Amino acid sequence: MPILVMKFGGTSVADLDRIRNAAEKVRREVERGYDVIVIVSAMSGKTNELVGWVEETSPLFDAREYDAVVSSGENITAGLMSLTLQEMDVPARSWQGWQVPLKTTSAHSAARISEIPRDNIDQKFAEGMKVAVVAGFQGISPEGRITTLGRGGSDTTAVAFAAAFNAERCDIYTDVDGVYTTDPRITDKARKLDKIAFEEMLELASLGAKVLQTRSVELAMRYKVRLRVLSSFEDSDENSGTLVCDEDEIMENKVVNGVAYSREEAKMTLVSVADRPGIAAAIFGPLAEAGVNVDMIIQNISEDGRTDMTFSCPINQVARAEKAMNAAKEAGEVNFHELIADTDVAKVSVVGIGMRSHTGVAARMFKALRDEGINIRVIATSEIKISVLIDRKYMELAVQALHDAFELEKAS
Amino acid sequence: MPILVMKFGGTSVADLDRIRNAAEKVRREVERGYDVIVIVSAMSGKTNELVGWVEETSPLFDAREYDAVVSSGENITAGLMSLTLQEMDVPARSWQGWQVPLKTTSAHSAARISEIPRDNIDQKFAEGMKVAVVAGFQGISPEGRITTLGRGGSDTTAVAFAAAFNAERCDIYTDVDGVYTTDPRITDKARKLDKIAFEEMLELASLGAKVLQTRSVELAMRYKVRLRVLSSFEDSDENSGTLVCDEDEIMENKVVNGVAYSREEAKMTLVSVADRPGIAAAIFGPLAEAGVNVDMIIQNISEDGRTDMTFSCPINQVARAEKAMNAAKEAGEVNFHELIADTDVAKVSVVGIGMRSHTGVAARMFKALRDEGINIRVIATSEIKISVLIDRKYMELAVQALHDAFELEKAS
Repeated sequence: MPILVMKFGGTSVADLDRIRNAAEKVRREVERGYDVIVIVSAMSGKTNELVGWVEETSPLFDAREYDAVVSSGENITAGLMSLTLQEMDVPARSWQGWQVPLKTTSAHSAARISEIPRDNIDQKFAEGMKVAVVAGFQGISPEGRITTLGRGGSDTTAVAFAAAFNAERCDIYTDVDGVYTTDPRITDKARKLDKIAFEEMLELASLGAKVLQTRSVELAMRYKVRLRVLSSFEDSDENSGTLVCDEDEIMENKVVNGVAYSREEAKMTLVSVADRPGIAAAIFGPLAEAGVNVDMIIQNISEDGRTDMTFSCPINQVARAEKAMNAAKEAGEVNFHELIADTDVAKVSVVGIGMRSHTGVAARMFKALRDEGINIRVIATSEIKISVLIDRKYMELAVQALHDAFELEKAS
Repeated sequence: MPILVMKFGGTSVADLDRIRNAAEKVRREVERGYDVIVIVSAMSGKTNELVGWVEETSPLFDAREYDAVVSSGENITAGLMSLTLQEMDVPARSWQGWQVPLKTTSAHSAARISEIPRDNIDQKFAEGMKVAVVAGFQGISPEGRITTLGRGGSDTTAVAFAAAFNAERCDIYTDVDGVYTTDPRITDKARKLDKIAFEEMLELASLGAKVLQTRSVELAMRYKVRLRVLSSFEDSDENSGTLVCDEDEIMENKVVNGVAYSREEAKMTLVSVADRPGIAAAIFGPLAEAGVNVDMIIQNISEDGRTDMTFSCPINQVARAEKAMNAAKEAGEVNFHELIADTDVAKVSVVGIGMRSHTGVAARMFKALRDEGINIRVIATSEIKISVLIDRKYMELAVQALHDAFELEKAS
């Protein structure tokens, strides 16, 4: 039997009615001839309740106990989903992470999956079970304790199962009906994509499109797991949603496929840094150690042995970055006149694998922004994306202008 | 180190404040020099919520999935209790049933404990851990699935751990401060007992004193586990609560130690049964098969080959008993004129191990009831108790009269 993995997020299993709705979708895939592995999240709100209790009990909690408590939300959904399927006469049973066992590292609350042995579930499929319902987000450490996978853990669980079981596809059911060219709240011209390449999805996910967690897309890309994002709340068929797949599967290949944005950016400038070999390492080493996620980096040309160094980071890491830089200054590792934090910026990016073989994308982007009178503060490029920092007040205008400029409302 | 088992029921861990209060009691025992095994129930209300979801999802639920869902309540408390203790600088960690592993039979939702290996927990004690927090009510089946122990499962878990670890005592923290000579709501002369023998506690528990589940007392008696019942909500010392122990430990030995009652009784009479050898088996066989818990049985003398047969059973099993008897009549297995169900009765019992060596207890009981004008419908006796069925309206009066007659307000 071909195997299909189906993952339902918290809003898709928020109450018994929604679990029934999700189970109905599973039943239909069983009727289509699949053996199905269902990965479930906790009912929405459950995990937050549990996390709240842990944090109130112990602000600096033991992550092993955190994991033991927080993982119970998924266990509840898994049992209820299995019961719901049984009520529909679909042979099903639930698995908690340790029962599979989904083996992970010992990094509690942020564990990495190390192995998913197939034996237990394969045996049940051979005995006639049609659906294995697996509690997402959790596993078991080499020490036999419960681990959780951290943010995006349930998506990652789903992709890992799809890889381990050579699933035909991994369907991620969520509260949106697919991946859009940009946020439909910003422009009603936003268009749902039928397909998107892993690399593009990665850029869109990490740039603020919250549909899929970066980590699960990375894993899908590595193991070539075909991922589909679709809505739990709409009828669906084989063509619903957006397929995230290898670029070879995509015929159209537009130059730009999406416009992403992020409001959560800050621009930090070290003014008049004493320039010398190794100065970048002296700055970004301490920032990395302090856990600051530096994104864009710009170094101006040097004058009289001094330069300005600008970088961007998430807005909630500004204080941490300042502390790290001031400490480095006091320790004599870095010499600068001033550190200016500009928290009034936003990042806007255009993404597309077609950029690799097309020139002129940057020019077209800059022109579109210029035509709207939007000043670009910082530019950064990669093989398949171009990002700019601009004043936050222009963010929506910029997204709209770029969506128009690259004609993303058109299907090809 | 001597080992102490402490068990906290649902109301004792109902919220984070109460968990902190319970943890404080654990900390004090650690300071007194114990290694402690704490058994926790689910926060009160949690299990009902989970059971409600399961029953709504699937009225004839798969008990394996029921167990997987319902056991999560205890897991949450175990993690939170461990975190709370860690916050108090008490080295603690949580165990879920399968981690111990607490091995059970495969009888899901009513599993029996088969083995509790000590290795894992002993090793952690040897490494300096002071408190093992164990999720009560659950274990793991030979097939590797989660089981629950059914009603009273957390008390039973506690006693089983006390037996396996040769604990000095098993303290059951609950919302009452001990075992009383009778229900204090019925007479304010009710007195808390300092000690009570296992056998007496068993009779009191099964007769309606809801402090301890019968099953846990049976287990404690078999393994001679000294059980103490005491309140979570009062300061306690070594003499608090009531100690349930071997009768050898009890010096006083009054003839009667308690008066129990039950409102939930019904009196069933099969009128004019054709009497023949084997008739009792023909009646009580089908009742047992139908799951009717027959308590007292009275057979009148036979006249003209016919007799009346009276028995008592829980009031909510009357319909089941009637169905079983009518089926037996139709099948020609039993011949009777009429089945009369009297649901307007109550059972009142006096209990005391001293009865074994004292005569005249029954006479004193019957006189006390007669003096109040209370008519006795049915009498049943065992080695250490005498029970009567009376009209329900006299129940409170009977309890008060018997409490007075046996001078239970006096300590010895």
